[in-house]
Amino acid sequence: MELNFRSDNESPAAPAILEAFVEANQGTAWAYAEDRWSERLDEAFSGLFGTPTTVLPVSTGTVANSIALASVTPPWGSVYCHRNAHIQNDECGAPEFFGGGLRLVPVDGPDGKFTAQELERQIRANEGHGVHAYLASAVSITQSTESGTIYQPEEISAICRSAEQHGMATHMDGARFGNAVASLRCRPADITWRAGVQMLSFGASKNGCFAAEALLFFGKPELRERAERIRKRSGHLLSKMRYVSAQLLAYIDDGLWLDLAGHANRQAARFAEAVSNHPEASLEYTVSANEVFVKWSRDGFQRLEGAGIQFLTWPGRDDLARFVFSHCTSEAETAELCRVLAQ
Amino acid sequence: MELNFRSDNESPAAPAILEAFVEANQGTAWAYAEDRWSERLDEAFSGLFGTPTTVLPVSTGTVANSIALASVTPPWGSVYCHRNAHIQNDECGAPEFFGGGLRLVPVDGPDGKFTAQELERQIRANEGHGVHAYLASAVSITQSTESGTIYQPEEISAICRSAEQHGMATHMDGARFGNAVASLRCRPADITWRAGVQMLSFGASKNGCFAAEALLFFGKPELRERAERIRKRSGHLLSKMRYVSAQLLAYIDDGLWLDLAGHANRQAARFAEAVSNHPEASLEYTVSANEVFVKWSRDGFQRLEGAGIQFLTWPGRDDLARFVFSHCTSEAETAELCRVLAQ
Amino acid sequence: MELNFRSDNESPAAPAILEAFVEANQGTAWAYAEDRWSERLDEAFSGLFGTPTTVLPVSTGTVANSIALASVTPPWGSVYCHRNAHIQNDECGAPEFFGGGLRLVPVDGPDGKFTAQELERQIRANEGHGVHAYLASAVSITQSTESGTIYQPEEISAICRSAEQHGMATHMDGARFGNAVASLRCRPADITWRAGVQMLSFGASKNGCFAAEALLFFGKPELRERAERIRKRSGHLLSKMRYVSAQLLAYIDDGLWLDLAGHANRQAARFAEAVSNHPEASLEYTVSANEVFVKWSRDGFQRLEGAGIQFLTWPGRDDLARFVFSHCTSEAETAELCRVLAQ
Amino acid sequence: MELNFRSDNESPAAPAILEAFVEANQGTAWAYAEDRWSERLDEAFSGLFGTPTTVLPVSTGTVANSIALASVTPPWGSVYCHRNAHIQNDECGAPEFFGGGLRLVPVDGPDGKFTAQELERQIRANEGHGVHAYLASAVSITQSTESGTIYQPEEISAICRSAEQHGMATHMDGARFGNAVASLRCRPADITWRAGVQMLSFGASKNGCFAAEALLFFGKPELRERAERIRKRSGHLLSKMRYVSAQLLAYIDDGLWLDLAGHANRQAARFAEAVSNHPEASLEYTVSANEVFVKWSRDGFQRLEGAGIQFLTWPGRDDLARFVFSHCTSEAETAELCRVLAQ
Repeated sequence: MELNFRSDNESPAAPAILEAFVEANQGTAWAYAEDRWSERLDEAFSGLFGTPTTVLPVSTGTVANSIALASVTPPWGSVYCHRNAHIQNDECGAPEFFGGGLRLVPVDGPDGKFTAQELERQIRANEGHGVHAYLASAVSITQSTESGTIYQPEEISAICRSAEQHGMATHMDGARFGNAVASLRCRPADITWRAGVQMLSFGASKNGCFAAEALLFFGKPELRERAERIRKRSGHLLSKMRYVSAQLLAYIDDGLWLDLAGHANRQAARFAEAVSNHPEASLEYTVSANEVFVKWSRDGFQRLEGAGIQFLTWPGRDDLARFVFSHCTSEAETAELCRVLAQ
Repeated sequence: MELNFRSDNESPAAPAILEAFVEANQGTAWAYAEDRWSERLDEAFSGLFGTPTTVLPVSTGTVANSIALASVTPPWGSVYCHRNAHIQNDECGAPEFFGGGLRLVPVDGPDGKFTAQELERQIRANEGHGVHAYLASAVSITQSTESGTIYQPEEISAICRSAEQHGMATHMDGARFGNAVASLRCRPADITWRAGVQMLSFGASKNGCFAAEALLFFGKPELRERAERIRKRSGHLLSKMRYVSAQLLAYIDDGLWLDLAGHANRQAARFAEAVSNHPEASLEYTVSANEVFVKWSRDGFQRLEGAGIQFLTWPGRDDLARFVFSHCTSEAETAELCRVLAQ
Repeated sequence: MELNFRSDNESPAAPAILEAFVEANQGTAWAYAEDRWSERLDEAFSGLFGTPTTVLPVSTGTVANSIALASVTPPWGSVYCHRNAHIQNDECGAPEFFGGGLRLVPVDGPDGKFTAQELERQIRANEGHGVHAYLASAVSITQSTESGTIYQPEEISAICRSAEQHGMATHMDGARFGNAVASLRCRPADITWRAGVQMLSFGASKNGCFAAEALLFFGKPELRERAERIRKRSGHLLSKMRYVSAQLLAYIDDGLWLDLAGHANRQAARFAEAVSNHPEASLEYTVSANEVFVKWSRDGFQRLEGAGIQFLTWPGRDDLARFVFSHCTSEAETAELCRVLAQ
Repeated sequence: MELNFRSDNESPAAPAILEAFVEANQGTAWAYAEDRWSERLDEAFSGLFGTPTTVLPVSTGTVANSIALASVTPPWGSVYCHRNAHIQNDECGAPEFFGGGLRLVPVDGPDGKFTAQELERQIRANEGHGVHAYLASAVSITQSTESGTIYQPEEISAICRSAEQHGMATHMDGARFGNAVASLRCRPADITWRAGVQMLSFGASKNGCFAAEALLFFGKPELRERAERIRKRSGHLLSKMRYVSAQLLAYIDDGLWLDLAGHANRQAARFAEAVSNHPEASLEYTVSANEVFVKWSRDGFQRLEGAGIQFLTWPGRDDLARFVFSHCTSEAETAELCRVLAQ
């Protein structure tokens, strides 16, 4: 038996998403996001977030992040993000490409998070003289983080206030936004626009969709034209956008996204507990969402692998491994993982 | 009743494609095109084309075209294409974006086609002195063309020979490649690599898929690394690529793509005949694929619209309209269109 | 003896410019255009043009053009210019590079000029559907033109009015602006901001300077920040900018630039007359500035070359040659050229 | 009296350079670096470095650095440099602009220098999985450094060997190369190609020229075409390049450059000694070239300023100041500075 805890990217879609997808496949529909699914997105997300929201459906988180940042950052502007951020490490420079050579400035901080104080320190450290230096233009926060941790609403507010004081735009990479909201049991607004976030990459692919993400602008309708231009120009305006939009509508309908994320989070919590109770293995970070980073011996991990458990390790760190739980991880699979661990 | 002849982009997916899609939604699969569907693409397309073929699955034709051109053209290189080409008129500068500011040079020619002679003439007309001018780097042909016409194999060979003499790379935008092959009843190889085409944007979305295109390199394996970098960097490496690849495999399996395209072509031919027999309306171009451009009076077109027929007209040309037929256009729909026309 | 009529780019600097240059070489001066020469430019040019003018000194006309266009055109915007424009043919895509992949749209017209009507026609011909097409963003006029002809003030006004109606910015490539003003005997304002031109690449290198051009913005102070960023980012903010600025100040001081250009124009006029009187040779374009395009036989041109006359011909046109006169072309040289021609 | 120790960028040109400049201003010369000065550069620099050298004359160090890096780094490649490097902090992202969004990776190290070990560590820390991460493409070393220190030949060799093992290209930013060679009393080859450096931004503007730098490729003739394209496309191919090339030829003729740099270094050494002997002030870095970084009290610096001494301080560091000595700093000026310091 193979048990896959490598990544939520490797999960299939949830049944309700498939159903919506199949349902969208009826008859003709106008192309290029002028279909009746796409045209309902603004209203649906405005309802979900409780504020006028501009929605651009896209296929990947990378492009959602890149359009967002390129919409508010000139080529000579810099974007501050955590050193472990996906935009910094895992997108092959997509933000730089979309942004005409903008620069990312990594900010350090424990648990995959940075503080407003550390952000301030970095901004000051990168201040230069006039046109010779990059202009501090935007901040990007990842929620839940690359370490499986979560920013509290007040931490986000502090960061966004700091950004605002410097005239910087604010973006949240919400590839696992659902896991964060499900974990915090807050309203989506609480950790986004109410805390000062202007743009959100609302992830859905990892949590039950096939390939569906939404770039949201809160109260910045003037950015739509620019963002839509960039989407088209980067080849991301699908002719048959209805299939993406239909996924998104189904995903946020009746709390499905939070049900799926909550299930994943619970599996992670259960495994986290098992790790905590283990005599040798330990948790590298607090487990708040659907990812569990385990510190253990090389032998320990090899034993798991030998038992058919799949997970990821990093080059140069053979004492650390990541286990990701998704909407489709069954209780039985989690139980089996815990059982093998405890052996 | 509404009858939609606006665009094949507005068609739903074919049942067999949906079936393959659903089938791919079983269990987990490695992300980022390392799944078992994606990994079969090279072999499947190599078989279809009868030559070693490198395949990059992507979601849109625009990105397939853009990666292809950016893979072989430096920022100071130019790409020659027909004045009506999609890359010239309908991609908001995606080739220029991906290519770091490369330049498209439009070539004129009747029926949406240009000849090797006209290409030569344009290349010479744009020759400049050394580093001061753009370097002629690539040629892009659209097959079937934006006018619904088709290049004959020997026309393609002539263009590619000309390109080769200038050291230029050759690309085919095959957004409606299936319609061309079905119409010519040739082997796919005959109008691609055997005729000198090095890269093909193999379209599938318009002809039965949801969102699936393939960028093919014939015998240029060294371009794969560069092309994959550009795909990733532009946000087009889907995490769940299996869903695109599964569509592509089903699409070319057992000639499905040609069955679908053949059906669309036959509907177009039937309508073309009706137009030919009409006392006032006439065909703007020879109808060889699935698009019919009709020249008629404004009144005539309005009468069709009044009868619930949907089709596209262009700004400033109220005597010309386009009717597109797709895999899902039923015989009954075509018959109804012909009936209304003849009234 | 060698007589060089190849290009005004090949002329040395005028004595007064050299003198100012040497004079600037005294003691230290703050770097990066914060010296006392650079800081006088705004005032000096505002005086010359009779309107508040923002000045960026740079070293080449290509960069002046490119910064201007990139300051007002988004990557998905297009710039309309004459088919023979320097930005179109002789800058290896610098506007595209600086503008992140903007597109130039060539406009046709006799005598190196296009009309407002032809501009309108081209804009309409390139209109597309929403985000799929480039946005018409700017117009660029060359004065004097690449053919040695000159736009009349009312021709410029008509073009700029047309641009304004489309919300497009207006730029003039004035690589030979002095020749135009000297020829028209107008005020600099008459063919620039009063006629609707917002940005001027004010050329000086061809007409007496070493390497000095000025990018001027008329009444658009908000573009300075953006333009200065682009200048720095493209490596064009010289540390010792005083040497460029000192050239510019001397160049416009007391009408030197018009004296130099007037001299060049008179030499061209004299040769043009000789061509007109020649039994076989003829003028390809009206001669209004310092360039003379001669239509003649291959044998005729070879005879001139045999007599040590240097001039340029174009690939593929052996019946056409260009003779350029500069501030340093002596009366005797012109006389000798006329003499050889008449033999 | 004002004594300017702010920057060598603020110095005038040396008499011999002015003389060569004036001498070049005789008669006409072919444009665009086809003049007889520019055409001698390859030979002259090949002689100076004792190896076949390809030379591109340009006007600024920023563009020399940017063309070099863009010539060897794809948009998805990264360039490793010291955290304090000019390319990182003072060029407003010119390398990113020229390189289509390449990324700079800062490497830490004391005294403005990094070691091969630290470079290795950073490369490993930035290693990612395949196309998801930037590719390590180039290393850039500054000699002399931004801290006024100098890399020893063996330190450079170690870095270049490390780069070579990773398939990375090697570049040296030699804005103050002359100061380094004069200080080390080595041959130019010893700290460049013999140590593994493939490209050198050979600075001259700071050390006696008006605006003249040379980008050198050692034994990489195949990069010339690409580099020349980028130079043209960025607006840096001066029409009257003879004036830049004439400066460069005079600069390296008969050791002038080393005489000028040696003089500057001696002034710095003299001041450094004065600082060392001061009861309160101290040297922040070893003084090996022409820059002296002084650590002192705010009051101390204010007293110097009160005495008419000009120098630079940094935002947020009021206990640190930089004093730069140039070819034109007179013995008397240095003596006066030392005198004021000692008061």
